[in-house]
Amino acid sequence: MNVPLRIFRILSLTTLLLMFGGESEAAQRPNVIVILADDLGYGDLSCYGHPTIRTPNLDRMAAEGMRFTDFYSAAEVCTPSRASLLTGRYAVRSGMAHNQFRVLRNRSTGHLPESEVTLAEVLKARGYATGMVGKWHLGVWYVEPAGYPRRHGFDSFLGLPHSNDMDPTGLGPKPAGHLAEQQAEWWNAPLYRNEQLVEQPVDQTKLTRIYTEEARRFIHDHRKEPFFFYFAHTFPHTPLFASGAFRGTSRRGLYGDAVQELDWSVGQILETLRREKLAENTIVFFTSDNGPWLIMNQQGGSAGLLRDGKGSTWEGGMREPAIAWWPGKIKPAQVNTNMTTMLDLFPTLASLTGADIPKDRAMDGIDLSPNWLKAAPLPSRPFFYYRGTNLYAVRKDQWKMHLFTQKGYGQPKPDAHEPPWLFNVNIDPGETFNVSTNHPTVVADLLKEIEAHRTTVVPVPSQLETVATNTPAAKP
Amino acid sequence: MNVPLRIFRILSLTTLLLMFGGESEAAQRPNVIVILADDLGYGDLSCYGHPTIRTPNLDRMAAEGMRFTDFYSAAEVCTPSRASLLTGRYAVRSGMAHNQFRVLRNRSTGHLPESEVTLAEVLKARGYATGMVGKWHLGVWYVEPAGYPRRHGFDSFLGLPHSNDMDPTGLGPKPAGHLAEQQAEWWNAPLYRNEQLVEQPVDQTKLTRIYTEEARRFIHDHRKEPFFFYFAHTFPHTPLFASGAFRGTSRRGLYGDAVQELDWSVGQILETLRREKLAENTIVFFTSDNGPWLIMNQQGGSAGLLRDGKGSTWEGGMREPAIAWWPGKIKPAQVNTNMTTMLDLFPTLASLTGADIPKDRAMDGIDLSPNWLKAAPLPSRPFFYYRGTNLYAVRKDQWKMHLFTQKGYGQPKPDAHEPPWLFNVNIDPGETFNVSTNHPTVVADLLKEIEAHRTTVVPVPSQLETVATNTPAAKP
Repeated sequence: MNVPLRIFRILSLTTLLLMFGGESEAAQRPNVIVILADDLGYGDLSCYGHPTIRTPNLDRMAAEGMRFTDFYSAAEVCTPSRASLLTGRYAVRSGMAHNQFRVLRNRSTGHLPESEVTLAEVLKARGYATGMVGKWHLGVWYVEPAGYPRRHGFDSFLGLPHSNDMDPTGLGPKPAGHLAEQQAEWWNAPLYRNEQLVEQPVDQTKLTRIYTEEARRFIHDHRKEPFFFYFAHTFPHTPLFASGAFRGTSRRGLYGDAVQELDWSVGQILETLRREKLAENTIVFFTSDNGPWLIMNQQGGSAGLLRDGKGSTWEGGMREPAIAWWPGKIKPAQVNTNMTTMLDLFPTLASLTGADIPKDRAMDGIDLSPNWLKAAPLPSRPFFYYRGTNLYAVRKDQWKMHLFTQKGYGQPKPDAHEPPWLFNVNIDPGETFNVSTNHPTVVADLLKEIEAHRTTVVPVPSQLETVATNTPAAKP
Repeated sequence: MNVPLRIFRILSLTTLLLMFGGESEAAQRPNVIVILADDLGYGDLSCYGHPTIRTPNLDRMAAEGMRFTDFYSAAEVCTPSRASLLTGRYAVRSGMAHNQFRVLRNRSTGHLPESEVTLAEVLKARGYATGMVGKWHLGVWYVEPAGYPRRHGFDSFLGLPHSNDMDPTGLGPKPAGHLAEQQAEWWNAPLYRNEQLVEQPVDQTKLTRIYTEEARRFIHDHRKEPFFFYFAHTFPHTPLFASGAFRGTSRRGLYGDAVQELDWSVGQILETLRREKLAENTIVFFTSDNGPWLIMNQQGGSAGLLRDGKGSTWEGGMREPAIAWWPGKIKPAQVNTNMTTMLDLFPTLASLTGADIPKDRAMDGIDLSPNWLKAAPLPSRPFFYYRGTNLYAVRKDQWKMHLFTQKGYGQPKPDAHEPPWLFNVNIDPGETFNVSTNHPTVVADLLKEIEAHRTTVVPVPSQLETVATNTPAAKP
């Protein structure tokens, strides 16, 4: 489907909604800001118990809003997680997952398919200004222009096509100790504004500040119309960088410096909303794309009491810090212990803004707004933990069942579990005590859930498989 | 030294202090309440990041006061930890540590030596009413009456001589699954009021409530005079019990129920202080005696991101949740990241109350009050991690050095490290990355600290070694 046709279809659905009584609710169009950290672990914020990282702005955001204890990213690594966030669908449905490559590489020709409908697109169709800063990682546009964020619903973009370690010019092996060093030329990350290369290598120590300034400007420029802003931080993904104002300020070392600068940035966004008198008309949601990258050692984050991290379907790989903030609508100082996921953000934000969700495809989330705003109970439902395109585990209520387990990195093959392993992640969030033999009916029920889910998954070609053999187009 | 002589000496020191200008400060005698949990882990409170245990009262106490990220118990298990709390001295100095027995058993003849001066004694000498509820574990008085709390400075006592699993009648092996069951007769714990046996086996489901009611009564009865109250909870040590009002209320299971009842109890104490208009004249300090008892599986707690638990000198064994509360004096919502320890409570509370500390012996803590009240910086100093009478590790600033490591339970012999292992526990609180080869001067400095400390430790007979061969006197 080409772009104009898609927007026409979405507009039609909105029109139908307006005709059939959704009017008063649809008339409300609060602003939406989604802030996504990169590789931030469950245990890495003060308000999630970290002893040496200080995050006063995120702590305040939680104190003024709702902090989630059981919120999941939709994938164990970056590309599929971000695809799920923007589409509301497991990445296996969009082709944005792969077992070997796992994420888009700097020469990947694939990208988020144009047939996918993004949150930006439905909000744009609803009359929202849409903007983005930060890490895209849903298409490497200097290899294939269809990857540009502006082809997927964003009016404006400032950021990187992919992770900050994906040196597109192949300058060769990094010196020992490189993770602790802030030398931009080793990484050669390209900063783009829309389709224009701005700086390569970008000085990564400035990235968080550049993104934040762009966000503040965007908010100010669009203060008189509804807007959607997607703030996808580059950090604390390695290589770690922090600006001079933050370098050396955290007891946690450079990782803490980067998180504390991110925390500062969140504070700047909320402060800008207050100053512009937009706070009570703006929903802000903060989370991370996946768990901490533990193999980075002291440069990697912490999953707190959870097991393993990025790359794995243990809780540490996919359970994330998450905070929702909407003064006057979401009551302050709430702790939300429901199992909810990144897949729910699309339908929830669509519901709160009166935007349409696509009706012609499987959508994997539910509308959480009655729960957020009125504490309405949520249905019992399964969440599926994918590693690449393989379904490794499922959670429903307090029960998490593993068909396969595998460390995020460094374990070449998974361990298959027959009978499956079962953990009560309320009693045992660290997934230490397999209780499957005590609960055969739970295991049987979860196996049925997996079976039912699998019938809904139609195989699609993977976007992550094809790699360009020519030199990337954007080489400076 | 007998009791009257000791009190005379303490009174003399107080008189001297009053003579030499300490008058205005000494005239202040705020109330002091120390609340000690049993085996609560670093990660077990909401305000320390636990996802399924809800502790609104302790969270509120932290929000109104000061929460500590780097507070240590003075020992890895119960008896030496409690001896250190009340004496301000490492247990190796008082004979209250032992490598094999580790804690006082139900037939131990030893007890806190009368030559030790307790916090209760110095506060009593300062004119305080002194009371205690809960677990004593510094002398098994039905074996040896010198163990009674009233011989060590407390005017009144209601509680248990030791842990709640130390069946003194030897009813034989417990049924399988006993940890999950609330059957008092299997445990046969004896509840005493002062020197009188009140109930055996006591119904442990009522213990937290009984203690709390006693505490509320004590506060009310002594509202017009300065008081010191030591609230030593029996839980969440196993076997776990919770009252009907709390049983089944926590997503974390029975462990969470017990912690949530303890949280309720803390709320009751603070509420009583508010109601009696004593809040601004009462210092309340909350902490735990040691880390979580991990071998109890789902019945044991969580050290969060820290390594190992009770019984070990890894951080999980000795770093504890800790909260100080004193409305109007300690500013609200502070997070104190200094390395401080249970050994500091004696000199700190003595300083805040104008009480004397013994001058004729090594005291291992320092006065934290300038830091708590005025954010005065603390000196760089070492803390020593003992396992029994053996010094296993030392921390100074961000550096923790291990001579030996050993799991809390289930590892018969320690691993000796030569050269010692070194961790930066600010950057790496989970103690995963040994960096000793990068920091030889730090290692050398810490070895010197150990050497200097060892010259101050005079060997004393262990109080934990001798076990009565006759049947315990208090058998019902």
